[in-house]
Amino acid sequence: MVEPGDLAALKAFDGLGVLEIWELLQESSPGMERWSTRLAEADPERDLERAADAGARFVIPGDDEWPDQVEILAEAGQLSRRAGVPFGLWVRGPANLRHVLARSVAMVGSRACSTYGEHVAAELSAGLAENGVTVVSGGAFGIDAAAHRGALAASGVTVAVLACGVDVSYPKRNSALFSRIVEQGLVMSELPPGCSPTKLRFLARNRLIAAGTLGTVVIEAAVRSGALNSAGWAEQCGRAVLAVPGPVTSRMSAGSHLLVRERDAVLVTSVPDIIEAISPLGTRLTPYPQEPRTVTDDLDHDLRRTLDAVPRIHPAPAPRIAITAGLDLLTTQTSLEALADLNLVEPSDEGWRLAAEV
Amino acid sequence: MVEPGDLAALKAFDGLGVLEIWELLQESSPGMERWSTRLAEADPERDLERAADAGARFVIPGDDEWPDQVEILAEAGQLSRRAGVPFGLWVRGPANLRHVLARSVAMVGSRACSTYGEHVAAELSAGLAENGVTVVSGGAFGIDAAAHRGALAASGVTVAVLACGVDVSYPKRNSALFSRIVEQGLVMSELPPGCSPTKLRFLARNRLIAAGTLGTVVIEAAVRSGALNSAGWAEQCGRAVLAVPGPVTSRMSAGSHLLVRERDAVLVTSVPDIIEAISPLGTRLTPYPQEPRTVTDDLDHDLRRTLDAVPRIHPAPAPRIAITAGLDLLTTQTSLEALADLNLVEPSDEGWRLAAEV
Repeated sequence: MVEPGDLAALKAFDGLGVLEIWELLQESSPGMERWSTRLAEADPERDLERAADAGARFVIPGDDEWPDQVEILAEAGQLSRRAGVPFGLWVRGPANLRHVLARSVAMVGSRACSTYGEHVAAELSAGLAENGVTVVSGGAFGIDAAAHRGALAASGVTVAVLACGVDVSYPKRNSALFSRIVEQGLVMSELPPGCSPTKLRFLARNRLIAAGTLGTVVIEAAVRSGALNSAGWAEQCGRAVLAVPGPVTSRMSAGSHLLVRERDAVLVTSVPDIIEAISPLGTRLTPYPQEPRTVTDDLDHDLRRTLDAVPRIHPAPAPRIAITAGLDLLTTQTSLEALADLNLVEPSDEGWRLAAEV
Repeated sequence: MVEPGDLAALKAFDGLGVLEIWELLQESSPGMERWSTRLAEADPERDLERAADAGARFVIPGDDEWPDQVEILAEAGQLSRRAGVPFGLWVRGPANLRHVLARSVAMVGSRACSTYGEHVAAELSAGLAENGVTVVSGGAFGIDAAAHRGALAASGVTVAVLACGVDVSYPKRNSALFSRIVEQGLVMSELPPGCSPTKLRFLARNRLIAAGTLGTVVIEAAVRSGALNSAGWAEQCGRAVLAVPGPVTSRMSAGSHLLVRERDAVLVTSVPDIIEAISPLGTRLTPYPQEPRTVTDDLDHDLRRTLDAVPRIHPAPAPRIAITAGLDLLTTQTSLEALADLNLVEPSDEGWRLAAEV
């Protein structure tokens, strides 16, 4: 009866459950005209049967499976036209919706992504799956599909949030993928079985992906794209907004770079980066990346200067090394002996040279 | 006599000019032993002659060409072992050092960069040159050379800051490049003519690149690299630290991403981004990137829902469209007429469909 994210409906039905709303609409109460056009064709029993046939269920607030975090949309929605807590969620698949979303990350990006984007989406979601993080995405080609495939390949749980019924394969060419998701994870939608997607349903769907997860990772997205719409929802819901950079020569990465530059998104390059961002502050910190230290890192200034002045092949006497290093002879000699103890230089009859392995 | 960035020398010679220091060293005053080893070989007249032969000059504090901004190194140096304001700068080329550095950007990165890094360095520095910004870099292969070439190709001014004498071509294979830089820009060093580079001289040189410019752009750099050392100096000198992102699959871009994630570097993807970062706050702002708006962007919610429900090929009557849209019939009819006025839908005997050009 009511389109997802219909603000007028949110106002009219504030605080009411699905059954109460259903009764209001059937009674053709005053003010209900806006939603009465679909009344003749509405058939909730048929919807439930159709869902049962597809192995799907309808989850409503208060159910054990209900993910409370989507209720943030009661407030986050004030800023947008396609807002609101869904009346309920149609769910298909073996996993428990509440449990799998408890530690989940949305991965969104372009349908027409590059092979780079596809590769990164698959690698990151495989890594997240291996770390017990559920990957949530839409059902489109490109980044969405790559994200699901990566998680499935790692035997992880993945959730596809659709803008159509959970029994509808849209796009058709992803139907094999949806079948695999339904075996291992979940397909979810706020639209009843049989519904087709529309542009506005895609936009309304984005709020569920953002609100249901701890953070949204944007992989490749144009400056104007559904993925950036999802990132906007994540921002409004107070979720982490994460962006994977890419070549500045690729228009596909412009949206990710925009998020980092203009909207304070966290730049992420790896699974640990993502896990840090969705974990409580101060936990699961990514170690500051470091290359292995070398023995010369720990030399004091005079030792480094002396070492820097020692020739590699033809030995030089200490006074010559002192001149090259710009140090007095005593300091140079002491330094050369210390460096010899560290096996960095070796003495010979003609003077000093670097040890073979330096 | 004194190696660049020798902290002991900075302390001993604090506040003294080159001539006073030279006299102190020649008199073998007490406490000068550290620097006396090179006395026998020192020959300032020969240095000046050699400089003159190479068309170079020695610029010292107080000279018209002296770039005052490097004096930040008197304070910024306290944190590091290779600090300090240079006693003077050897300069070769037609440009005025002070003038060209007044609006300049350092561009640093890996010697062993990828073709992506080389391409981006050349493009960005050509664009900076076209905007009257001097590009400053070292003299190495990879990003350094690409940055100079880009600026030269755009007939811009470029400055190579070397860790050897301004008459020394290191690396040799860049000597044609140095010749071109000397014609159109400047080669600069704090080491006298004839000096060879050493590891520590490269590190000391980095502070001049950072201090002499308004900001340092890191293009491709490993997590442990000279480019990140330069970025560290820029940070210490209060200069802008800018990083160009790249594929997360490339180790070469790891240093840039690290700077953005951990050290608050500004992510830059274009010349306007860089110019914004080096300009006074609030000026030269990069416009927020936007794709062109379409006519449907400005439709209100009901119009968009109605439009979304209009079929493309086979016309549908208004009551059917009302059901699809989930709107009452009156709203739907009013919306269809408004959409027709905008040439977005067209009526026919069987109902409404999208206009051909939508």
